[in-house]
Amino acid sequence: MTGETELENWTLKKTGWQAGDAAEDGNRFLCANGYMGLRGTVEEAGKEQFAAVTLAGVYDQFEDRWREPVNAPYPLYAALSFDGESLSPDSAGSGNHETELDYRSGIYRRDTDFGPVRLRTKRFVSMAAHHLLSDCLEIEVRQAGTLEIRTGIRTDIWDINGPHLFGFRIESGETLLCRGETGEKHISVASAQCAAADFAAEETFETNDKGVFRILRRKAGAGEKLTAVLYAAVYTSLDGAEWKEAAEAECLQAKAKGYAACLREHEDAWEKIRNCSEVLLEGNEQGALALRASQYHLNSIAPRHAGNMSIPARGLSGQTYKGAIFWDSEIFLLPMFMYTQPEIARSLLNYRIETLPGALEKAAEYGYRGAFYAWESQEGGKEGCTNFNVVDVFTHRPVRTYFRDRQIHISGDIAYAMRSYYETTGDRSLLEQGGAAVILECARFYLSRANAHADREEVDFADVIGPDEYHERVTNNAFTNRIACSCIDSALRLQEDFQDRPEWFAALLKERQFEADWHLLPALRDRIRGPKKKNGIIEQFDGYFDLEDCSLDTVRGRLRDPREYWGGDHGVAGTTQIIKQADVITLMALFPEDFSDGEVDANWAYYEPRTEHGSSLSACMYALTACRTGRTDEAWELFLRTAMIDVTGGGKQWAGEIYIGGTHPASNGGAWMIAALGFAGLRMVHGEPELHPHLPRQISRLVFPFTAKGKKLMAEVTREGHSITER
Amino acid sequence: MTGETELENWTLKKTGWQAGDAAEDGNRFLCANGYMGLRGTVEEAGKEQFAAVTLAGVYDQFEDRWREPVNAPYPLYAALSFDGESLSPDSAGSGNHETELDYRSGIYRRDTDFGPVRLRTKRFVSMAAHHLLSDCLEIEVRQAGTLEIRTGIRTDIWDINGPHLFGFRIESGETLLCRGETGEKHISVASAQCAAADFAAEETFETNDKGVFRILRRKAGAGEKLTAVLYAAVYTSLDGAEWKEAAEAECLQAKAKGYAACLREHEDAWEKIRNCSEVLLEGNEQGALALRASQYHLNSIAPRHAGNMSIPARGLSGQTYKGAIFWDSEIFLLPMFMYTQPEIARSLLNYRIETLPGALEKAAEYGYRGAFYAWESQEGGKEGCTNFNVVDVFTHRPVRTYFRDRQIHISGDIAYAMRSYYETTGDRSLLEQGGAAVILECARFYLSRANAHADREEVDFADVIGPDEYHERVTNNAFTNRIACSCIDSALRLQEDFQDRPEWFAALLKERQFEADWHLLPALRDRIRGPKKKNGIIEQFDGYFDLEDCSLDTVRGRLRDPREYWGGDHGVAGTTQIIKQADVITLMALFPEDFSDGEVDANWAYYEPRTEHGSSLSACMYALTACRTGRTDEAWELFLRTAMIDVTGGGKQWAGEIYIGGTHPASNGGAWMIAALGFAGLRMVHGEPELHPHLPRQISRLVFPFTAKGKKLMAEVTREGHSITER
Repeated sequence: MTGETELENWTLKKTGWQAGDAAEDGNRFLCANGYMGLRGTVEEAGKEQFAAVTLAGVYDQFEDRWREPVNAPYPLYAALSFDGESLSPDSAGSGNHETELDYRSGIYRRDTDFGPVRLRTKRFVSMAAHHLLSDCLEIEVRQAGTLEIRTGIRTDIWDINGPHLFGFRIESGETLLCRGETGEKHISVASAQCAAADFAAEETFETNDKGVFRILRRKAGAGEKLTAVLYAAVYTSLDGAEWKEAAEAECLQAKAKGYAACLREHEDAWEKIRNCSEVLLEGNEQGALALRASQYHLNSIAPRHAGNMSIPARGLSGQTYKGAIFWDSEIFLLPMFMYTQPEIARSLLNYRIETLPGALEKAAEYGYRGAFYAWESQEGGKEGCTNFNVVDVFTHRPVRTYFRDRQIHISGDIAYAMRSYYETTGDRSLLEQGGAAVILECARFYLSRANAHADREEVDFADVIGPDEYHERVTNNAFTNRIACSCIDSALRLQEDFQDRPEWFAALLKERQFEADWHLLPALRDRIRGPKKKNGIIEQFDGYFDLEDCSLDTVRGRLRDPREYWGGDHGVAGTTQIIKQADVITLMALFPEDFSDGEVDANWAYYEPRTEHGSSLSACMYALTACRTGRTDEAWELFLRTAMIDVTGGGKQWAGEIYIGGTHPASNGGAWMIAALGFAGLRMVHGEPELHPHLPRQISRLVFPFTAKGKKLMAEVTREGHSITER
Repeated sequence: MTGETELENWTLKKTGWQAGDAAEDGNRFLCANGYMGLRGTVEEAGKEQFAAVTLAGVYDQFEDRWREPVNAPYPLYAALSFDGESLSPDSAGSGNHETELDYRSGIYRRDTDFGPVRLRTKRFVSMAAHHLLSDCLEIEVRQAGTLEIRTGIRTDIWDINGPHLFGFRIESGETLLCRGETGEKHISVASAQCAAADFAAEETFETNDKGVFRILRRKAGAGEKLTAVLYAAVYTSLDGAEWKEAAEAECLQAKAKGYAACLREHEDAWEKIRNCSEVLLEGNEQGALALRASQYHLNSIAPRHAGNMSIPARGLSGQTYKGAIFWDSEIFLLPMFMYTQPEIARSLLNYRIETLPGALEKAAEYGYRGAFYAWESQEGGKEGCTNFNVVDVFTHRPVRTYFRDRQIHISGDIAYAMRSYYETTGDRSLLEQGGAAVILECARFYLSRANAHADREEVDFADVIGPDEYHERVTNNAFTNRIACSCIDSALRLQEDFQDRPEWFAALLKERQFEADWHLLPALRDRIRGPKKKNGIIEQFDGYFDLEDCSLDTVRGRLRDPREYWGGDHGVAGTTQIIKQADVITLMALFPEDFSDGEVDANWAYYEPRTEHGSSLSACMYALTACRTGRTDEAWELFLRTAMIDVTGGGKQWAGEIYIGGTHPASNGGAWMIAALGFAGLRMVHGEPELHPHLPRQISRLVFPFTAKGKKLMAEVTREGHSITER
């Protein structure tokens, strides 16, 4: 990061301009509304600067490249020239440019002083109307001259594994319209744009291989203040038959309504979101601000427009990680939504219910029964993960990785989330409307995947990958074995969940042809190998303690290329005890009742120094367990690291030769978890919410709204005490 | 290979000198007698040219490097100088040097014309007295001058992972003696040497950090012909308490006996060996010569001096492959010995019986019961294979390989060999004296290693490596599953083998605490997954057909470094259908009764083009199966490739950064197998030997001696017919 960045009150502000920051700033200054994400690049930016509008849930595969989400034709392009000279932040000089993001309601502002002209913009992706984007350009003319404002929709789209849109059809006039169709499934994507200027100008249109452009030209006098507002709408054919007409209509309606009204509706929508989810943290300004940033990012990408979508690992910040849904959704994102906006949590889980057929298919592909959920799930549960998910930096050859075939904990994670949702919200309809079937099919998968033996009772899960992905193809990963047990427990408990509707449950078993398997589950559950311990430390997997025990620095020192992939047998970490992320500690965070405080503390002390935290799924788990054992200083430090990740930028940008930059929803969700579940200690006990606080000395007061079993509640924790009240 | 090489009658002859050939010629011109191997380097050569006397069965580990066999102090060093100028083949000029190896009785000759002096030597490693080596130097002086002959024992020893000998103690006088002790186990190694010259000379001694030397200096006249004979003996403290005295005594006794008499005893011993094993091949001179070369190499390294030793993968040609015993011994070397010199076959198998404790220990190390034999077995069954058995050429980092932990077919190979030996020789004492226990413990290992399931009967062997080592960690390798079944069958058949001694067998089961396991074996056997087929082609392992199906040339073309390791997930072959060596075809060669001719042919046609033959264990299996289906032209071509390997040199010299050059006993054994078991079709049918010939058109007649069930027999196959007669 270059340029000076400040986080103050609700605003992230960056002073100065460095062209090389564009990729990272695109993530940090992201605006999104769950339907789409508009990267935080300046209006003049093109594909070279990773300017993009990324669509949620619309995927395409080009040739044999990776399937990934589709970026729409970019409809908020705008660039100025003055007296024939193009203006850009590059030419303005580094000191004459500022960027801001207001986390309260996701408003992006830029301010560039080009000398003869100053440009201020203010844009948002509407939280009230999820197809709408708008940008207000204020131009101050300092000296007389010819001003040209070039705006339009760009068809030269940034794609990682594209192109994805073909056969563009372009219309211009009051509304610019640009339509293209994906190559794989022929999904149409349309971007429309119209403009309202408060000044007279010569208007011309231009269509070329970069897109369609509206050019406003005016001989401007010194001191003129001009305003032009761009209204844009994005639709796809998945949104209904009238997608093209809707795109045009929506921007014209917005134009008619006016910028101020559109903005107000957007801000009102955000206020409602904040009212049900905002955590007030007192005592430490940095912590408060970081938490706001985190919550902004997570709330902005929640699928509010659909009841059956989930959230990709890099949110809507681009095509990184193929726009796929990982276990992040169930384990790291779900808790905040479940406690603050259960309808969004339900959408995340409905996505898994609807993609059950894909999971059944994947299990069958590997010769198993039941539901083996995709590691990188795309629409319909399609597996986005390939067998070669990393590129070797030395040979430039794809590396065979086993994420796709061996991360079997994903099914258990989903079953775990289903039960958590039910127990927290009390909403049994989730189970009735597909959730119970998911849990059963996941249990069946473990039944089918389990390794029994010819000469002994014990059951292993062999050849798996646990949360720590650096160690591939291990046996009896403690976390995986436990989540499998939990899944089987959850399946068996369904009988009790539906004891008032035994016929319904019997019918379900029958419908899924589950009767024979049902009777095998209790014995399987009893025989699954529990964790192996040495001096109280749980062995992450069989043989882990036999691996080279060296420091993180030693392992880092062995890198010959900074972009090298650390994991697998060829990676610097794979043959050592250095792990990518919390694994045994995730086990302890998810199943706290299995372990004593002493055990948690000893394992924390063992594993933390051996953890690279090379994933956004790590620090949160260490922080949650640290709270429990009174390591509140460490928890606070990890909380800041987690909550600040999309403020400071950073994080790993490369895995081998694959770009993995973007925002970090799991960290955002993790920050809320640390605050609410860790510091405040919120948990459900016998069906009732309780607080068991572990406030770090940096915090004097925590207040946050939540819901449990349908009740709207408010939690408050201070040094003096804590309370849960109705609101 | 540079220099011109001819193979004529019984002799391999090379004309010319190229210093760069020393390493490869050291293998091709090897002399050995089972106790030790003397590399085929010139007398002047030192460690830089890989001159060495490698000892069978004496291992040492230096620091954390690989354990490997120990090379003795080199006792046949000799170099001339004339008028103060050192003479060497380098200085003689390339055209003035010849080397020969007589395959009849392993006599190495060199002839170098230095100009003023010509040196002819003739040396052997005695097959009659296995500690003895001798070299006869004939020097023809062309012009008057001062001749100096420097001979001695070198202590600057060539080691790959050394040094291994420490604390040298040196004596000089009539006998030069040099003793050192290994670092790991304090095994003493002594080389002694004495010399007999037929001319008067000034004799002086020199001891320095290179060894101990005897210098003979003479003012020689033009036309003088001088002869000096070196007698050397090598002993270790493993040979008995009097090892030092014996070394001295043995060379003095040889000196007293004289070179001619020693040579005659050596040649007589070789004649006996040839009489019981030599295959006469008529109709094709190249084939006949290649077969002689092959048989020479294999016979020269047979452990005739001990009843409990086996043969390393690179014989006694050096320390390559750690001097370890692989499955080569049971599957590729055993057949020739079993049919021609059963006492040597018995020694090979006794080695496995004696190392059973090591195999039990290895199984326990991995959490299994029974006998898991070492992949690279050293003395006592110690595993020589490390977890990092290849070095990456790009990063120079050791690569995690799974040869050590997953090549579980080794135990079945050994059980298979035990039964073959018993059925061919009729010698049940092998089973009584430990063989039956080995078979039982191997079966127990498979019982313990098998993957059963919680919801179905089928049993898999998961996470294994089959014969084709390029594909690591595969499931249901067809060969591995079959050899495991065969091992269990063999265990179950023991009851029948000992139906005349039921108490003995019951006592054996009891002694080994095998009763409970015994009852589990039949069900296990029935449930092991048989081969999966697609269009009649057996899938080498689960998922093999889903791998990239590309040509060998395509895969080779992807190499970025000629020394790259092809295998594992990172290798160019590992993710394709290209295999290192016969795998399904080995299954068909070892279990011919399981398959129809048509199946064999179809699988041959599928797999052969996908096989790199990157191992000496490959061509032989393809040739054997090709014979069966009438592909005799292909069989002939593979036979020549197999039999010529140690004539032409070549073969892979590198695996990653590891040197793997040496002789190829498995190919040597394979050549005999192709001739006797393939072309002549020798096999045991209902306890009697039969011939089922498949003579290639290149062969008019095959005659060879063999023994079966204790009877000495002679097989003859011509185009007209075939016969087995007593001899």
